[in-house]
Amino acid sequence: MELFTAIRERRSCRAFSTEPVDEATIDRLLEAAGWAPSPLNAQPWQFIVVTGEEKKLAFFEEANRCRRWAVEKSGWKWLDAYSVDFLKKVPVIIAVVGDPKKTGTDMLQSDGTVGYQHACAAAVQNMLLAAHALGLGSLWFTLFDRGAMRKILDISEDNTPIALVCIGKPDKPLATVPRKDVMAKTIYLR
Amino acid sequence: MELFTAIRERRSCRAFSTEPVDEATIDRLLEAAGWAPSPLNAQPWQFIVVTGEEKKLAFFEEANRCRRWAVEKSGWKWLDAYSVDFLKKVPVIIAVVGDPKKTGTDMLQSDGTVGYQHACAAAVQNMLLAAHALGLGSLWFTLFDRGAMRKILDISEDNTPIALVCIGKPDKPLATVPRKDVMAKTIYLR
Repeated sequence: MELFTAIRERRSCRAFSTEPVDEATIDRLLEAAGWAPSPLNAQPWQFIVVTGEEKKLAFFEEANRCRRWAVEKSGWKWLDAYSVDFLKKVPVIIAVVGDPKKTGTDMLQSDGTVGYQHACAAAVQNMLLAAHALGLGSLWFTLFDRGAMRKILDISEDNTPIALVCIGKPDKPLATVPRKDVMAKTIYLR
Repeated sequence: MELFTAIRERRSCRAFSTEPVDEATIDRLLEAAGWAPSPLNAQPWQFIVVTGEEKKLAFFEEANRCRRWAVEKSGWKWLDAYSVDFLKKVPVIIAVVGDPKKTGTDMLQSDGTVGYQHACAAAVQNMLLAAHALGLGSLWFTLFDRGAMRKILDISEDNTPIALVCIGKPDKPLATVPRKDVMAKTIYLR
């Protein structure tokens, strides 16, 4: 698929078919992720590909717990109505985990260490575009507590869970999500 | 350009030709950036397109200051030899600025507000891929202090400078930067 078409057409999916995604396809997504740029080319990511029911249920329960807690804290009604059931149904969830030690020069800076997270986000974006080009729906999911997610993924305190990338065939046509005119968000300093 | 080709072939550029990049081309990069996904589709980015000499010089001076300070703190010899002169020469620098208020549910979480930064990073990745597809070199640059960058860009404390995206024609062929086998960074939980 042409790059600009993929960028423009890719949308978030929350209704997935249970049809499995074969591992050769998942590997293409991971290869795309691995080409993302990173500080000092440190490639500060790790991927945990989840297809088993048990972990998906744990993701669902953690997301639901966070959702209820967030509703209580915020009063946001849309979040009260937002179902995370798709986490149990989606065929593949790729957990993206970042390594704060591989963050480049920002480890020296007072603002904190974020470069490795930005690189992981770029890797996620590559995966989402690749998924669309391969006819798959995708969702960048982050409704979890990082501490709880470390336990579910069985990773140490030294690593940061960045995102759960949900992948599967869309169960129905994806809704168009509009964007603001980017020019309204742009200033030119000539 | 085909998506996977762009993902695989795009490399960082540090040696730019001074040949200007026309604004229609810059607008295509910005449009690509604007299609990135974001928490609650809040589109938490702003773009400041710099083509004038004065701001570029300010970026250079800030980067050089950070570089010297980082060399002193780290003792990294490669950083001592790393020239940031290209910041004065590159035809276009797009500063990407994030809005922490547009971060979705993670504003409620104890781990801090990072979703808006991840979205900005996805927007940067879209720009880098788009630049490559349009025959341009690009560099994701972050060697600056955020407070100092706010002053240079004349933005308030409420906004976070995320990256300087350098854009221009490469002055020489770009070096291939290898990647580790992504499978060595992947675990399958079936």
